[in-house]
Amino acid sequence: MGFDPGTLVYDERGLLPVIAQDHASGDVLMLAWMNADAVANTLETGRVTYWSRSRNAFWVKGETSGNVQKLVEMRIDCDRDCLLVVVDQTGPACHTNRRSCFYTALRGGAEVEILKPES
Amino acid sequence: MGFDPGTLVYDERGLLPVIAQDHASGDVLMLAWMNADAVANTLETGRVTYWSRSRNAFWVKGETSGNVQKLVEMRIDCDRDCLLVVVDQTGPACHTNRRSCFYTALRGGAEVEILKPES
Repeated sequence: MGFDPGTLVYDERGLLPVIAQDHASGDVLMLAWMNADAVANTLETGRVTYWSRSRNAFWVKGETSGNVQKLVEMRIDCDRDCLLVVVDQTGPACHTNRRSCFYTALRGGAEVEILKPES
Repeated sequence: MGFDPGTLVYDERGLLPVIAQDHASGDVLMLAWMNADAVANTLETGRVTYWSRSRNAFWVKGETSGNVQKLVEMRIDCDRDCLLVVVDQTGPACHTNRRSCFYTALRGGAEVEILKPES
Protein backbone atom coordinates (compact mmCIF):
# COMPACT_ATOMS: atom_id res chain seq x y z
CA MET A 1 0.00 0.00 0.00
CA GLY A 2 1.56 3.29 -1.08
CA PHE A 3 -0.76 5.40 1.02
CA ASP A 4 0.23 6.16 4.63
CA PRO A 5 -2.82 6.55 6.95
CA GLY A 6 -0.51 8.50 9.27
CA THR A 7 -0.73 11.45 6.87
CA LEU A 8 -4.38 11.98 7.84
CA VAL A 9 -5.38 14.31 10.68
CA TYR A 10 -6.87 12.59 13.72
CA ASP A 11 -8.50 14.16 16.76
CA GLU A 12 -7.22 13.98 20.34
CA ARG A 13 -8.64 10.43 20.57
CA GLY A 14 -6.76 9.39 17.45
CA LEU A 15 -10.01 9.20 15.44
CA LEU A 16 -11.56 10.87 12.41
CA PRO A 17 -15.17 10.83 11.22
CA VAL A 18 -16.01 8.65 8.22
CA ILE A 19 -19.10 9.10 6.06
CA ALA A 20 -20.36 6.00 4.25
CA GLN A 21 -22.21 6.59 0.98
CA ASP A 22 -23.95 3.93 -1.08
CA HIS A 23 -22.23 3.50 -4.42
CA ALA A 24 -25.39 2.58 -6.30
CA SER A 25 -27.96 5.00 -4.87
CA GLY A 26 -25.78 7.85 -3.63
CA ASP A 27 -27.60 7.66 -0.28
CA VAL A 28 -25.65 8.70 2.79
CA LEU A 29 -25.80 5.57 4.95
CA MET A 30 -24.07 6.38 8.24
CA LEU A 31 -21.25 8.18 10.00
CA ALA A 32 -18.73 6.32 12.13
CA TRP A 33 -15.09 6.68 13.18
CA MET A 34 -11.73 5.24 12.22
CA ASN A 35 -8.26 5.36 13.70
CA ALA A 36 -5.16 4.95 11.52
CA ASP A 37 -5.19 1.16 11.91
CA ALA A 38 -8.86 0.98 10.88
CA VAL A 39 -8.05 3.04 7.78
CA ALA A 40 -5.19 0.66 6.97
CA ASN A 41 -7.34 -2.43 7.58
CA THR A 42 -10.12 -1.05 5.38
CA LEU A 43 -7.71 -0.41 2.52
CA GLU A 44 -5.97 -3.76 2.90
CA THR A 45 -9.06 -5.92 3.19
CA GLY A 46 -11.56 -3.95 1.08
CA ARG A 47 -14.03 -4.45 3.96
CA VAL A 48 -14.92 -1.23 5.75
CA THR A 49 -13.60 -1.39 9.32
CA TYR A 50 -14.45 1.29 11.86
CA TRP A 51 -13.29 1.90 15.40
CA SER A 52 -16.08 1.40 17.92
CA ARG A 53 -15.96 4.20 20.49
CA SER A 54 -18.31 2.30 22.81
CA ARG A 55 -16.42 -1.00 22.68
CA ASN A 56 -12.95 0.50 22.12
CA ALA A 57 -12.31 -2.13 19.49
CA PHE A 58 -12.20 -2.62 15.74
CA TRP A 59 -15.63 -2.89 14.20
CA VAL A 60 -15.60 -4.76 10.92
CA LYS A 61 -18.93 -3.54 9.62
CA GLY A 62 -21.32 -6.45 9.17
CA GLU A 63 -19.06 -9.02 10.85
CA THR A 64 -21.91 -10.21 13.06
CA SER A 65 -24.95 -8.96 11.11
CA GLY A 66 -23.69 -9.90 7.65
CA ASN A 67 -24.49 -6.38 6.47
CA VAL A 68 -20.99 -5.78 5.20
CA GLN A 69 -19.66 -2.73 3.39
CA LYS A 70 -17.36 -3.49 0.49
CA LEU A 71 -15.10 -0.54 -0.20
CA VAL A 72 -15.51 0.92 -3.66
CA GLU A 73 -13.42 4.04 -3.07
CA MET A 74 -11.98 6.02 -0.16
CA ARG A 75 -11.91 9.79 -0.48
CA ILE A 76 -10.14 12.37 1.69
CA ASP A 77 -11.41 15.87 2.40
CA CYS A 78 -9.50 19.14 1.98
CA ASP A 79 -8.43 19.26 5.64
CA ARG A 80 -7.49 15.56 5.66
CA ASP A 81 -9.52 15.17 8.87
CA CYS A 82 -12.57 13.40 7.41
CA LEU A 83 -13.08 10.49 5.04
CA LEU A 84 -15.82 9.52 2.62
CA VAL A 85 -16.09 5.81 1.90
CA VAL A 86 -18.12 4.92 -1.15
CA VAL A 87 -19.39 1.43 -0.49
CA ASP A 88 -21.25 -1.53 -1.86
CA GLN A 89 -23.65 -2.10 1.06
CA THR A 90 -25.11 -5.54 1.71
CA GLY A 91 -28.46 -5.28 3.51
CA PRO A 92 -29.37 -2.36 5.75
CA ALA A 93 -26.55 -0.16 7.08
CA CYS A 94 -28.35 0.84 10.28
CA HIS A 95 -28.55 -1.35 13.38
CA THR A 96 -32.30 -0.58 13.38
CA ASN A 97 -32.51 -2.58 10.14
CA ARG A 98 -33.09 0.51 8.03
CA ARG A 99 -31.15 1.14 4.85
CA SER A 100 -29.66 4.36 6.27
CA CYS A 101 -29.13 5.68 9.80
CA PHE A 102 -30.62 9.01 8.68
CA TYR A 103 -34.22 7.87 8.75
CA THR A 104 -35.62 10.80 10.71
CA ALA A 105 -36.35 14.08 8.92
CA LEU A 106 -37.54 17.38 10.29
CA ARG A 107 -40.63 18.43 8.37
CA GLY A 108 -42.88 21.23 9.49
CA GLY A 109 -41.05 21.40 12.81
CA ALA A 110 -41.76 17.75 13.60
CA GLU A 111 -39.70 14.56 13.41
CA VAL A 112 -40.92 12.28 10.65
CA GLU A 113 -39.78 8.71 10.01
CA ILE A 114 -38.85 8.57 6.34
CA LEU A 115 -37.48 5.02 6.18
CA LYS A 116 -39.03 1.86 7.59
CA PRO A 117 -37.05 -1.13 8.84
CA GLU A 118 -36.46 -3.73 6.15
CA SER A 119 -38.08 -7.07 6.64
CA MET B 1 -40.28 25.72 15.93
CA GLY B 2 -41.57 22.52 17.50
CA PHE B 3 -38.22 20.75 17.38
CA ASP B 4 -35.86 21.17 20.33
CA PRO B 5 -32.15 21.02 19.31
CA GLY B 6 -31.43 20.15 22.96
CA THR B 7 -32.77 16.65 22.27
CA LEU B 8 -29.74 15.89 20.09
CA VAL B 9 -26.58 14.32 21.50
CA TYR B 10 -23.51 16.59 21.51
CA ASP B 11 -19.91 15.70 22.32
CA GLU B 12 -17.88 17.06 25.24
CA ARG B 13 -17.37 20.29 23.27
CA GLY B 14 -21.11 20.66 22.74
CA LEU B 15 -20.78 19.84 19.04
CA LEU B 16 -22.01 17.20 16.61
CA PRO B 17 -20.81 16.39 13.10
CA VAL B 18 -22.97 17.51 10.19
CA ILE B 19 -22.77 16.06 6.70
CA ALA B 20 -23.87 18.32 3.84
CA GLN B 21 -25.28 16.59 0.77
CA ASP B 22 -26.23 18.30 -2.47
CA HIS B 23 -29.96 18.03 -3.08
CA ALA B 24 -29.69 17.94 -6.86
CA SER B 25 -26.68 15.67 -7.43
CA GLY B 26 -26.58 13.62 -4.23
CA ASP B 27 -22.89 14.47 -3.88
CA VAL B 28 -21.49 14.61 -0.37
CA LEU B 29 -20.13 18.15 -0.18
CA MET B 30 -18.47 18.54 3.22
CA LEU B 31 -18.51 17.72 6.89
CA ALA B 32 -18.59 20.43 9.53
CA TRP B 33 -19.87 20.90 13.09
CA MET B 34 -22.84 22.47 14.81
CA ASN B 35 -23.73 23.26 18.40
CA ALA B 36 -27.36 23.49 19.54
CA ASP B 37 -27.57 27.19 18.67
CA ALA B 38 -26.22 26.56 15.18
CA VAL B 39 -28.86 23.85 14.68
CA ALA B 40 -31.55 26.29 15.83
CA ASN B 41 -30.22 29.09 13.61
CA THR B 42 -30.09 26.78 10.59
CA LEU B 43 -33.71 25.72 11.11
CA GLU B 44 -34.93 29.26 11.77
CA THR B 45 -33.14 30.97 8.88
CA GLY B 46 -33.04 28.14 6.32
CA ARG B 47 -29.38 29.06 5.79
CA VAL B 48 -26.97 26.38 6.97
CA THR B 49 -24.96 27.70 9.91
CA TYR B 50 -22.06 25.74 11.38
CA TRP B 51 -19.87 26.32 14.41
CA SER B 52 -16.29 27.09 13.45
CA ARG B 53 -13.93 25.16 15.73
CA SER B 54 -10.96 27.30 14.63
CA ARG B 55 -12.67 30.66 15.11
CA ASN B 56 -14.98 29.57 17.97
CA ALA B 57 -17.81 31.42 16.30
CA PHE B 58 -20.91 30.85 14.20
CA TRP B 59 -20.12 30.21 10.58
CA VAL B 60 -22.98 31.07 8.28
CA LYS B 61 -21.84 29.08 5.29
CA GLY B 62 -21.17 31.40 2.34
CA GLU B 63 -21.55 34.61 4.33
CA THR B 64 -18.29 35.96 2.97
CA SER B 65 -17.83 33.80 -0.15
CA GLY B 66 -21.44 33.92 -1.33
CA ASN B 67 -21.40 30.11 -1.62
CA VAL B 68 -24.42 29.70 0.62
CA GLN B 69 -26.21 26.49 1.52
CA LYS B 70 -29.98 26.73 1.53
CA LEU B 71 -31.46 24.05 3.75
CA VAL B 72 -33.75 21.64 1.94
CA GLU B 73 -34.09 19.13 4.77
CA MET B 74 -32.36 18.28 8.04
CA ARG B 75 -32.13 14.59 8.98
CA ILE B 76 -31.10 12.99 12.27
CA ASP B 77 -29.29 9.69 12.62
CA CYS B 78 -30.31 6.74 14.82
CA ASP B 79 -28.03 7.78 17.69
CA ARG B 80 -29.09 11.44 17.43
CA ASP B 81 -25.42 12.41 17.47
CA CYS B 82 -25.00 13.25 13.78
CA LEU B 83 -26.98 15.30 11.27
CA LEU B 84 -27.38 15.17 7.52
CA VAL B 85 -28.32 18.46 5.88
CA VAL B 86 -29.64 18.16 2.35
CA VAL B 87 -28.84 21.50 0.75
CA ASP B 88 -29.23 23.66 -2.28
CA GLN B 89 -25.58 24.67 -2.72
CA THR B 90 -24.67 27.91 -4.47
CA GLY B 91 -21.22 27.70 -6.08
CA PRO B 92 -18.49 25.41 -4.76
CA ALA B 93 -18.82 24.09 -1.20
CA CYS B 94 -15.07 23.77 -0.58
CA HIS B 95 -12.80 26.67 0.34
CA THR B 96 -10.46 25.42 -2.41
CA ASN B 97 -13.18 26.40 -4.90
CA ARG B 98 -14.07 22.80 -5.65
CA ARG B 99 -17.64 21.58 -5.68
CA SER B 100 -16.98 19.12 -2.83
CA CYS B 101 -14.31 18.93 -0.14
CA PHE B 102 -13.83 15.24 -1.01
CA TYR B 103 -11.79 15.85 -4.13
CA THR B 104 -8.99 13.39 -3.34
CA ALA B 105 -9.51 9.68 -3.98
CA LEU B 106 -7.25 6.75 -3.26
CA ARG B 107 -6.78 4.78 -6.45
CA GLY B 108 -4.14 2.11 -6.87
CA GLY B 109 -2.58 3.13 -3.55
CA ALA B 110 -2.06 6.72 -4.68
CA GLU B 111 -3.90 9.98 -4.03
CA VAL B 112 -5.67 11.21 -7.14
CA GLU B 113 -7.35 14.60 -7.58
CA ILE B 114 -10.82 13.84 -8.90
CA LEU B 115 -12.27 17.37 -8.87
CA LYS B 116 -10.69 20.53 -10.22
CA PRO B 117 -11.30 24.01 -8.79
CA GLU B 118 -14.14 25.82 -10.51
CA SER B 119 -13.26 28.93 -12.45
